[in-house]
Amino acid sequence: MRAQGRPILSPPYGEPSPHEAAVVRIPFPGRVNTTAGASLTPLQSVRGIITPSGLVFERHHGGVPDIRPDAHRLLIHGLVERALVFNMDDLMRFPSVSRMHFLECSGNSAGEWGGLGKTVQVTHGLLSCCEWTGVPLAAVLQETGIDPRARWLLAEGADAAAMTRSVPMEKALDDALLVYAQNGEMLRPEQGYPLRLFLPGFEGNTSVKWLRRIKLGAAPFMTREETSKYTDLMPDGTARQFTLLMEAKSVILRPSGGQQVHGPGFVEIHGLAWSGRGRIARVDVSVDGGRNWRQAQLQEPVLPKCFTAFRLPWQWDGAPAILQSRTMDETGYVQPTREALIAARGFNSFYHYNGIQSWRVGVDGNVDNVHA
Amino acid sequence: MRAQGRPILSPPYGEPSPHEAAVVRIPFPGRVNTTAGASLTPLQSVRGIITPSGLVFERHHGGVPDIRPDAHRLLIHGLVERALVFNMDDLMRFPSVSRMHFLECSGNSAGEWGGLGKTVQVTHGLLSCCEWTGVPLAAVLQETGIDPRARWLLAEGADAAAMTRSVPMEKALDDALLVYAQNGEMLRPEQGYPLRLFLPGFEGNTSVKWLRRIKLGAAPFMTREETSKYTDLMPDGTARQFTLLMEAKSVILRPSGGQQVHGPGFVEIHGLAWSGRGRIARVDVSVDGGRNWRQAQLQEPVLPKCFTAFRLPWQWDGAPAILQSRTMDETGYVQPTREALIAARGFNSFYHYNGIQSWRVGVDGNVDNVHA
Repeated sequence: MRAQGRPILSPPYGEPSPHEAAVVRIPFPGRVNTTAGASLTPLQSVRGIITPSGLVFERHHGGVPDIRPDAHRLLIHGLVERALVFNMDDLMRFPSVSRMHFLECSGNSAGEWGGLGKTVQVTHGLLSCCEWTGVPLAAVLQETGIDPRARWLLAEGADAAAMTRSVPMEKALDDALLVYAQNGEMLRPEQGYPLRLFLPGFEGNTSVKWLRRIKLGAAPFMTREETSKYTDLMPDGTARQFTLLMEAKSVILRPSGGQQVHGPGFVEIHGLAWSGRGRIARVDVSVDGGRNWRQAQLQEPVLPKCFTAFRLPWQWDGAPAILQSRTMDETGYVQPTREALIAARGFNSFYHYNGIQSWRVGVDGNVDNVHA
Repeated sequence: MRAQGRPILSPPYGEPSPHEAAVVRIPFPGRVNTTAGASLTPLQSVRGIITPSGLVFERHHGGVPDIRPDAHRLLIHGLVERALVFNMDDLMRFPSVSRMHFLECSGNSAGEWGGLGKTVQVTHGLLSCCEWTGVPLAAVLQETGIDPRARWLLAEGADAAAMTRSVPMEKALDDALLVYAQNGEMLRPEQGYPLRLFLPGFEGNTSVKWLRRIKLGAAPFMTREETSKYTDLMPDGTARQFTLLMEAKSVILRPSGGQQVHGPGFVEIHGLAWSGRGRIARVDVSVDGGRNWRQAQLQEPVLPKCFTAFRLPWQWDGAPAILQSRTMDETGYVQPTREALIAARGFNSFYHYNGIQSWRVGVDGNVDNVHA
């Protein structure tokens, strides 16, 4: 207090405290090719339901292109009444909407089928939640018109991978958005600047970034990312395809793997729940590996297809404990145990792991990931 | 698309696109002393209700101190049952809450009493809205106990100005928070890292940053910032003191001063409304300088003491137009015209200007600030 502090506007666009330098994204384990890789949100440090844009996870298939917004175009063609090309000014002149929605890679928690990630950043970090602003895709399709034969659309990104995914027309006309802003400012480059498709509640990969082309068709387009990848190999050797919806899931962030509980006494158990089907209806928490459950408090606002924060006060007696959370969404869907998930899906799967997560608190207060 | 893009984690903590380099805070006009100065949020570019932390306005009286969180302490003393000192670990172990609230400096729009700021960043930029996470002050005061004679508290910051403000105990026990996180991560240095008081709906200056001391007393403490400053000089020469509540206010962000409407046709009028008293009940928009009004659409969620985004579709015929917004909060309070505000308050005031803002659209599409 004896010296003047740093002046205003140093810098004009602000940054976190240097004392928070450890709160950053880290690489997805084992991903060596960094243009076709992923980075993970430090969920153990996240508070509330908004993920800061600088910490939103990344998943790229050909790196992050550098796109000048005045040079960007979106072509909509195929089974439309008239093919149209839009520039960013055109799209930003449409009526806009802002909505808070989670975004989860369907590969999130994939390591938990067989392994045990050390921290919640590793086990659940392909997951974030932002306020997204853009134009309803349905409004833009009113301009092109829709041929009644159209049942699917192809969305294509302007990255080096030309990421392409097929999307059912029902979703396109329901709540799909053409998004240009995130958390109050234009999209970050790694989130698709200047334009991405956003499909609330669908697997993250279908919210195609750097969106340059939409083609309407009578059938799905059978792209690489929905045939050789992003399918679910079942125990009998057949594959589920187009499992686009992200089912209800929850995880405790604090205490979680790699953290330490500082002695017996009051501990707030704090976590997040989300569902691609709508609102979270309830979250139950167990401290004894699932034998007994108590209902957690949900933080308002509880919004559809959005993070819902939950909390449960806990008096830790210092004995070993296994912490779990289990959520139910407004459709009545209940997050499965790891055991039930594996009974249904086997061990061939990579995507869409939403089993209950277990954190063991040892007598020394250390928290570890366990399969319980 | 012919070359691989930038790899993941470049950088680990993400940044805006270089093409958005113009979207930054700027100095408050005429503020030369930059450690006792202010910077302004670029509201003309803000989308939705969350202000990105890097763009939240600043108002410092002695610069931004560099505080190590493990060295920071909060003393609570005075009319308490037992004086206590808390470190950050102590405070972060309390049950936490997250709430979305606006923050407005009471000096916001002060230039509009007599002048005409060119852009909404200049006229209204001492204004932001974030998701804040912390501990209810009431919960911490349960630990110290409260002497029944306590009616006010003093909050003191650890900056070089030792910023001090008096706060009524009713507010302290209602919705006051000790905040350590903002938009999902720890507070930014310029927002009070590692700890600030947050008083939802009160003038920004009372949400004391870098909070180091709270003293309970029987009367207000009559600090410099509530006697020589942050008072309202009335036409008769007397001064209103402790006008802590921020009354309902709204402003159109797009189109706004310095922008251009690109030709006649569809224009979405887009703005923000907020009230220190609770929820926004409605917003009306005029395109003819206040003669006729149409009700704007409010973007859900509409939260108490939080930004509410509003929109109105407008077919511009190319003739000169004067755009205004007028909000009413859930208590029935209606934002006054500039004329009505000046009739009540005269021209001696600096703080608490919440008059209706007028933007004139010329035949050339240029938008200017006018007193209408």
